[in-house]
Amino acid sequence: MRLTRYTDYAIRVLLHLGTHQDRTCSISEIARSYSISHNHLMKVVHDLGKAGYVTSVRGRSGGVRLARPAAEINLGAVIRHSEDGFDLTDCASCIIAPACGMTSVVREALAAFLGVFDRYSLADILGRRADLMALLAPRVAEEVRVHPSILK
Amino acid sequence: MRLTRYTDYAIRVLLHLGTHQDRTCSISEIARSYSISHNHLMKVVHDLGKAGYVTSVRGRSGGVRLARPAAEINLGAVIRHSEDGFDLTDCASCIIAPACGMTSVVREALAAFLGVFDRYSLADILGRRADLMALLAPRVAEEVRVHPSILK
Repeated sequence: MRLTRYTDYAIRVLLHLGTHQDRTCSISEIARSYSISHNHLMKVVHDLGKAGYVTSVRGRSGGVRLARPAAEINLGAVIRHSEDGFDLTDCASCIIAPACGMTSVVREALAAFLGVFDRYSLADILGRRADLMALLAPRVAEEVRVHPSILK
Repeated sequence: MRLTRYTDYAIRVLLHLGTHQDRTCSISEIARSYSISHNHLMKVVHDLGKAGYVTSVRGRSGGVRLARPAAEINLGAVIRHSEDGFDLTDCASCIIAPACGMTSVVREALAAFLGVFDRYSLADILGRRADLMALLAPRVAEEVRVHPSILK
């Protein structure tokens, strides 16, 4: 069982932006930080923008930043938005579905799972922000060397 | 987010055998019941046997049956056995993992998810056994026509 890579990347973007709330970040900086594909991130950031989680700033030192305080970004809502569905089993194709007790157990387990994320915000998982910044720093420094405008 | 097809099939096998506890069932009967691949089921049934959930009966009216009462087959244990892992996110490759608050939230959500299955047995999801038998009946009847020995 896994969350999609899409969700994984969405959370990473929010964590990166939450760690650097004092400035905008470029997509290439975020991609470099996590050593992940720039192209995949483009789509993730675009969708996070449409959903109102991040906002784009145009211009020379442009980039993206959180569109609202980290405490107002609920993890359950993010995961519901970014997962492509929660059909944990293929009941739709199963002949016994109308009488099968598994369906309601799966529904209950999924509610318990999402209910945990519902209790946390982005701010909660940014608790060790100084440590996060230190872990990201070497790669951010590399990005600054290549594109010094990110700190202007 | 999905459980693996392997888990889906393991649960279907147990539900089929739990619905017909008065006799053995052939793998081809189970495959036909759900319109799923016989070859995939072979591996699932073999593994369920090794794990002590089902037992094989040799001979002319041979097949498989539950190896223990349905009330003693815990769904949480079955899912832990049949899923190929519970690494919901790819934290292993992520540079911020040592300071990331997401790790513990994911762990908590997974525990809540599995905790629900831990509270149910196969007997619990067989509550509507007569209805399950009625839903499976047309395809079991077809199997009996082709291989009448399954009822001997």
